[in-house]
Amino acid sequence: MFGNVIVGQSGGPTAVINASLAGVIKTARDRGAEKVYGMRHGIKGLLDHNYVDLSELADSDMEIDLLKRTPSSYLGSCRFKLPEISDDRETYEKIFKILDELNIKCFFYIGGNDSMDTIKKLSDYALIINSDIKFMGVPKTIDNDLAVTDHTPGYGSAAKFIASTMKEIIRDGLVYDYPTITIVEIMGRNAGWLTAAAALSKGEDCEGVDMLFLPEKVFDIDHFMSRVKEQAESGKSMVIAISEGIRVMDGRYVFELSDHVEFVDAFGHKQLAGSAKFLANKIGAELGIKTRAIELSTLQRCAAHMASRTDITEAYNVGGAAVKAAFDGESGKVVVIKRISDDPYMSITETHDVHQIANVEKKVPLEWITEDDFVTDDLIHYIRPLIQAELSPIMINGLPRHLNCDLR
Amino acid sequence: MFGNVIVGQSGGPTAVINASLAGVIKTARDRGAEKVYGMRHGIKGLLDHNYVDLSELADSDMEIDLLKRTPSSYLGSCRFKLPEISDDRETYEKIFKILDELNIKCFFYIGGNDSMDTIKKLSDYALIINSDIKFMGVPKTIDNDLAVTDHTPGYGSAAKFIASTMKEIIRDGLVYDYPTITIVEIMGRNAGWLTAAAALSKGEDCEGVDMLFLPEKVFDIDHFMSRVKEQAESGKSMVIAISEGIRVMDGRYVFELSDHVEFVDAFGHKQLAGSAKFLANKIGAELGIKTRAIELSTLQRCAAHMASRTDITEAYNVGGAAVKAAFDGESGKVVVIKRISDDPYMSITETHDVHQIANVEKKVPLEWITEDDFVTDDLIHYIRPLIQAELSPIMINGLPRHLNCDLR
Repeated sequence: MFGNVIVGQSGGPTAVINASLAGVIKTARDRGAEKVYGMRHGIKGLLDHNYVDLSELADSDMEIDLLKRTPSSYLGSCRFKLPEISDDRETYEKIFKILDELNIKCFFYIGGNDSMDTIKKLSDYALIINSDIKFMGVPKTIDNDLAVTDHTPGYGSAAKFIASTMKEIIRDGLVYDYPTITIVEIMGRNAGWLTAAAALSKGEDCEGVDMLFLPEKVFDIDHFMSRVKEQAESGKSMVIAISEGIRVMDGRYVFELSDHVEFVDAFGHKQLAGSAKFLANKIGAELGIKTRAIELSTLQRCAAHMASRTDITEAYNVGGAAVKAAFDGESGKVVVIKRISDDPYMSITETHDVHQIANVEKKVPLEWITEDDFVTDDLIHYIRPLIQAELSPIMINGLPRHLNCDLR
Repeated sequence: MFGNVIVGQSGGPTAVINASLAGVIKTARDRGAEKVYGMRHGIKGLLDHNYVDLSELADSDMEIDLLKRTPSSYLGSCRFKLPEISDDRETYEKIFKILDELNIKCFFYIGGNDSMDTIKKLSDYALIINSDIKFMGVPKTIDNDLAVTDHTPGYGSAAKFIASTMKEIIRDGLVYDYPTITIVEIMGRNAGWLTAAAALSKGEDCEGVDMLFLPEKVFDIDHFMSRVKEQAESGKSMVIAISEGIRVMDGRYVFELSDHVEFVDAFGHKQLAGSAKFLANKIGAELGIKTRAIELSTLQRCAAHMASRTDITEAYNVGGAAVKAAFDGESGKVVVIKRISDDPYMSITETHDVHQIANVEKKVPLEWITEDDFVTDDLIHYIRPLIQAELSPIMINGLPRHLNCDLR
């Protein structure tokens, strides 16, 4: 090769975002990049000249393997949107000046649909100023809401964590001899892919969840209450999975419904309970049933100890494919995953114009959600291959070992 | 042997309570018990003649191994305290009549200090009526608050889950370049053993949690706020672990502090946030820092996929030791674990009079909690051996397989 490359991570972390980082670092090095730089805290850090040299890391198989098993963005992250080029050319001039100083030939950005906006703008600007630097997007998001790609790296591991945890929660929730309702709140403000993964808990050894509520459909709270009442009257305990983003007919989130009345903490601040907590309280108060609300919270995106091997491999591969494409001269593109077959599951990578991916949100098709608040077999067949197989954590002194964070 | 045995599970589930069940079933069978019965939903179920024959299960190595990996009480649980013998002899007559009908010679009860009360009363009653039935307690509780025993089965696995999850949460919590405060709420209303386990997250690859608050010490909310403020001003992100049971000077739980003001949901019901949520809101409101509250909730007690092998082995062993002791003629006792050495860690089982264990709560010694809101090395050395090693889940179709629940 002819110079150096730089890579950054952006947006919410995932369990496998570092596997993509490993794929970029290792492949760039193997294909002859002199130096591999890492932006600290994404493009925002780069603007502050905050970057590190990752070249040494690339040369240690042990560290690359640990990196694959290390959750959350190793390089740090940011939530930062570049200005429109027409509004603020100065920012772009500054970025390209830094890239030139570092002799950067290829720029890789690992992120979701917001982060792909960065690739779009930088590659657009490169065209304008006739720069040779190649800009490639590497997809990641647990939300699985990226367009064009069959699915996003990060989703499979989050889905695997959710499905296995649901199996355990269901066991726990059914232990007493009186009816109890457990409501589990799952991430995904606009897209229900993660909540749908709770459906995978159903199998030979588990009854699965009783109902699933995705944000793609309006949440009918009265219908919900009557269904809960009906089942509870039959003496049956239930476990219900809801997306944090479910909304009622007038567009309010369920967790906003408590907003009606005075709902302030000791300091006069409006304090919103989560949607699961809200529904659990409502059931407890109106139906007198014992309830429990569980938020899976950040554990969904950082549980590397329950990562999917399929997901880790694909995350690594999209990183490598981005390097290969950039070295072959491509720019302004995102690596996407194409599913070749379901059973046996096979996928390949392709590259796709970033303009059709940036800022676009892919939701669960309505035909994959059933009338009785569950998901179709098609949806389950779509997810199932993505959670297969494991990459065992390297356990040291009883705990999973991660790659040391000296960089921070 | 000369007849049958019966076993029940009581109180909150753990990740390894079924390993103790496996130890009882397998050992009783191996030592010649004709039939092994299981009470459904503990002593409460037995009073309703609700029991199952577990003898077949005992004869399948595959099922015994799956049972060891299955979280939550396989037989179901109850929270039921027997009346005082002097108040209600009828209940006892009923129980012993059922036991005689089933030709029960030994009775095993797997539970915490409340459940040991059942063993105490039944063995006392057996003495009064001169019954030959042997009653043995098998300890379990994630809370680790049982007296006499070095620790309780269930604690090591919960501690391992907490410590590994904290490592992942810490990675996730430090990802942005501005200060954030993550507050993690851990189970343990009166004893801080579980919260202390968060301290194990500290190691070569992890800075660990910044502060730990156990219920054994009064929680000084002003001091807490000033420490958080100080650290946040230095630009440092923090991860703080608190016990759900921390209380302020006047005895109120932290989550009760929101009680002062109108804090009701849409249905007029007082809605208490958890303590972590309360503190996160307070920090956000008063210091303007981005905060996040995470409740580990039931995941702590049902995460069999991250169970400690040491814990599973000991849980199995205390079940087996209870059978051996009963078959040797002991009654009215609890199996306890005695630590023989720390490094290498070794433990043995002994039996101990139930009267000194039932209803007694063991807390974290105050000398193991430091002035600066952390725990001493002694406490860490106490916990560390208990989280060692793994028993890999049997993964089928991407998820941990549990023993089928046909019994339910």
